[in-house]
Amino acid sequence: MAETSGHFLDRMFHPDSIAIVGASTTFPEAGWIGQLKGAGYKGKIFPINPKATEIMGLKTYPSVRDVPEPVEYAIFNIPARFTPQAMEDCAARGVKFVHVYSAGFSEIGTPEAKQMEVQLAEIAKRAGIRMLGPNCMGIYCPESGLTFNADFSKEKGHVAFVSQSGAESMRLVFLAQDVNIAFSKVISYGNAVDLDAPDFLEYLADDDNTKVIACYIEGIHNGPRFLAAIKRCLLKKPVIVLKAGLTESGAGAAVSHTASLAGSKSIWEAFFRQTGVVPAFTMDEVADIVQGFLRMKVPKGRRVAVVGRGGGIGVIAADICERAGLKVPPFAQSTRQKLTSVIPEAGAGVRNPVETTRGMGGAADFYQRGLSIVDEDPETDIILVHMAIDVYGGHTPNLASSTEAAALSLCAKVESIKKPIAVALFSGGHPDTILAIVTARDKLTKAGIPVYSGVESASRAINKIVNYYEYSRRYQ
Amino acid sequence: MAETSGHFLDRMFHPDSIAIVGASTTFPEAGWIGQLKGAGYKGKIFPINPKATEIMGLKTYPSVRDVPEPVEYAIFNIPARFTPQAMEDCAARGVKFVHVYSAGFSEIGTPEAKQMEVQLAEIAKRAGIRMLGPNCMGIYCPESGLTFNADFSKEKGHVAFVSQSGAESMRLVFLAQDVNIAFSKVISYGNAVDLDAPDFLEYLADDDNTKVIACYIEGIHNGPRFLAAIKRCLLKKPVIVLKAGLTESGAGAAVSHTASLAGSKSIWEAFFRQTGVVPAFTMDEVADIVQGFLRMKVPKGRRVAVVGRGGGIGVIAADICERAGLKVPPFAQSTRQKLTSVIPEAGAGVRNPVETTRGMGGAADFYQRGLSIVDEDPETDIILVHMAIDVYGGHTPNLASSTEAAALSLCAKVESIKKPIAVALFSGGHPDTILAIVTARDKLTKAGIPVYSGVESASRAINKIVNYYEYSRRYQ
Repeated sequence: MAETSGHFLDRMFHPDSIAIVGASTTFPEAGWIGQLKGAGYKGKIFPINPKATEIMGLKTYPSVRDVPEPVEYAIFNIPARFTPQAMEDCAARGVKFVHVYSAGFSEIGTPEAKQMEVQLAEIAKRAGIRMLGPNCMGIYCPESGLTFNADFSKEKGHVAFVSQSGAESMRLVFLAQDVNIAFSKVISYGNAVDLDAPDFLEYLADDDNTKVIACYIEGIHNGPRFLAAIKRCLLKKPVIVLKAGLTESGAGAAVSHTASLAGSKSIWEAFFRQTGVVPAFTMDEVADIVQGFLRMKVPKGRRVAVVGRGGGIGVIAADICERAGLKVPPFAQSTRQKLTSVIPEAGAGVRNPVETTRGMGGAADFYQRGLSIVDEDPETDIILVHMAIDVYGGHTPNLASSTEAAALSLCAKVESIKKPIAVALFSGGHPDTILAIVTARDKLTKAGIPVYSGVESASRAINKIVNYYEYSRRYQ
Repeated sequence: MAETSGHFLDRMFHPDSIAIVGASTTFPEAGWIGQLKGAGYKGKIFPINPKATEIMGLKTYPSVRDVPEPVEYAIFNIPARFTPQAMEDCAARGVKFVHVYSAGFSEIGTPEAKQMEVQLAEIAKRAGIRMLGPNCMGIYCPESGLTFNADFSKEKGHVAFVSQSGAESMRLVFLAQDVNIAFSKVISYGNAVDLDAPDFLEYLADDDNTKVIACYIEGIHNGPRFLAAIKRCLLKKPVIVLKAGLTESGAGAAVSHTASLAGSKSIWEAFFRQTGVVPAFTMDEVADIVQGFLRMKVPKGRRVAVVGRGGGIGVIAADICERAGLKVPPFAQSTRQKLTSVIPEAGAGVRNPVETTRGMGGAADFYQRGLSIVDEDPETDIILVHMAIDVYGGHTPNLASSTEAAALSLCAKVESIKKPIAVALFSGGHPDTILAIVTARDKLTKAGIPVYSGVESASRAINKIVNYYEYSRRYQ
């Protein structure tokens, strides 16, 4: 099962055996054992519970010490006060990695809890055990079948996420799954008493299965080491960082969340400016940028061709693009002439934005007959297609089918398009049309087209991706 | 049926009789006649069609001239080239208002089309007919049963929308309907050869059924008159303006959409700064701000109490609020102490943001036991509750019921809350959870709580509403 990059964390992501310390006897299917089995983990699982002899058909031991075979990785699912003894047991058994899922340590702020965290770290260090946490969700690695949520996909992908917040790590996975994006490794690392963000970043820099790295950071322990690790990643792949707590309001919140010192705003701004790291402000934006990096060709510049129904929305979209940092320049005269021949209605825009006509059917038709003309235009670098479902005409009965047909038309065409392309797909709030969106989004993303919830989120993500490539071309 | 404000447009919004020039014989139920009947229009309808004698049970006439009774309002649903003759017929019959739905005039840019528009206006002016359009959707007025879309609600409301774009006018109605907001008057006014934005604004300033006015503007014909009309409205009610074409990219797009000269960015910026008009950049934002004005109490300041599940999202939310122009300050010490007593988990945030615990059930419980404590806090002015559905734990089977229960808990509590309150309600993209959101949003908005699609859109709308009231207090 093991990979062979040689980094010490390889064994943590691909352990041959796992002990679940505090394996649940009530509904174990919903607990760690059930999740690991569901995720396809192929190594040995040793439930640890002094009150049970068998859980889900697996022989159960009173402590890790009692396991007759080697244990590579242990997950502590027990109250904080029992963790020092459990760590001693792991030390005795030669366990290499311990994920302390348990909370109730330095994050709650009492001197006793802090002291227990120090004690736990000392036991681990003495025994050469590397510790993940405490107070974290741990690892999701579809390659090896590690997971911390039964609803996470089993699909292997190319995105890594390093998150100080457990909830945010779940959030990004679900946001990404909604647009058919899968992960290589997700690490929720909590209090980071031992293993910390730079450890994971150093590993991911050289991990060939990881093409894009995202991070949620509230505070860091060792600035120079963090910076060096980020720079090492950036030599090979884009890194997106959501640094929470950069405002006065947010910094105050971060103190009470993870006891993190959020750090000076100006230092972090310099960090973003000087490294080429892609900054993000919400998890939705992180997911949007990830999608663009994975699915968009490298844009040659920041000039956008906007294509979609409606004249007013075209004007608004052009404004939004420019406010985001992009440009929507007029097409070349030759492009406009060619477009006039495929857009029958007089007065519909051919200057950029392009105004496709006659409802969703007109849009589907335009993708086949007009998109190549936009693709050939010398004045634009990127194609942004907006598909506004129902918002221009109510929830007509054929909306789902016409939306799907338009999506499929674009899917069929996209392979021949040379420019990077993205879709802004959105509807009003009627359930029928929301479901039509879900279906269309599934088709489009499976065809490799990045799909955004609106022109605003699309242009924001595209702008940051363009910034990244501009920086790379200049400095790397 | 008539109202009695005395403004000449009162008759246009409440006509006693309407002629449909170009009434369709194929599927008339889906045409203007069917729409008017469906919307509950109680006046007389005269279909005009030289090839029919009866449509939907109504006697049909070859021309407006032939109608034996007075005709107050006419809708032209005929090709542009037939409109001059139809206008002559209306002149002969003494029609007061004509809505020229037909397109194919100055917006298509040919000299012939422009000339026909001039001719049409001349005929109307000579006869004292006031003309709406051409190239526009016309009027939606649930009070009187006027409409231009069969899916528009029959419910009367308090929002007016004056829109240069027909599609955007539909879009705002649907966005608003999704959150249970109804309209007083919506006017899509197109090329504005006669009746123009200032006419409608002057009327709406004194319309007691209109509490909030929104506008979509690409260009204006008479700056001083527009400014005066806006100022008159602002003495009585908030006005939101989406001015499209303010960037170079957008201005270029506006020229090709409605042949509008978008106007200098600096002039428009001065307009927003000096009038107290609320600026918006997307139709979603217009809908968000409208909702806040209708449903939020007047905030005393811009200090926000953030309440919801998850520590990380609290930090991000605080950052988002501050970037939007708001503040998330620490609660008073007394507030924190009281909150500690209702939030059992050690370490959960009580400083602001408040971190509610134990899933949706914990949130529902907190609304009952903790929200009043937040309401009494002297350091905050507004309560922003974030409800993130499924994004923290997958699509568990009881998600819909627990989400609804949490929504109902908040609905039951909100009447006793003295501070303005808003909810950011969002999910991942799984159909089950999207539908749970739709249900919860319906409950919350029906209880008068404004609901936003995320913390970002909520804080942006709230900030602009606070700006409006600050301006009003200072200058009006």
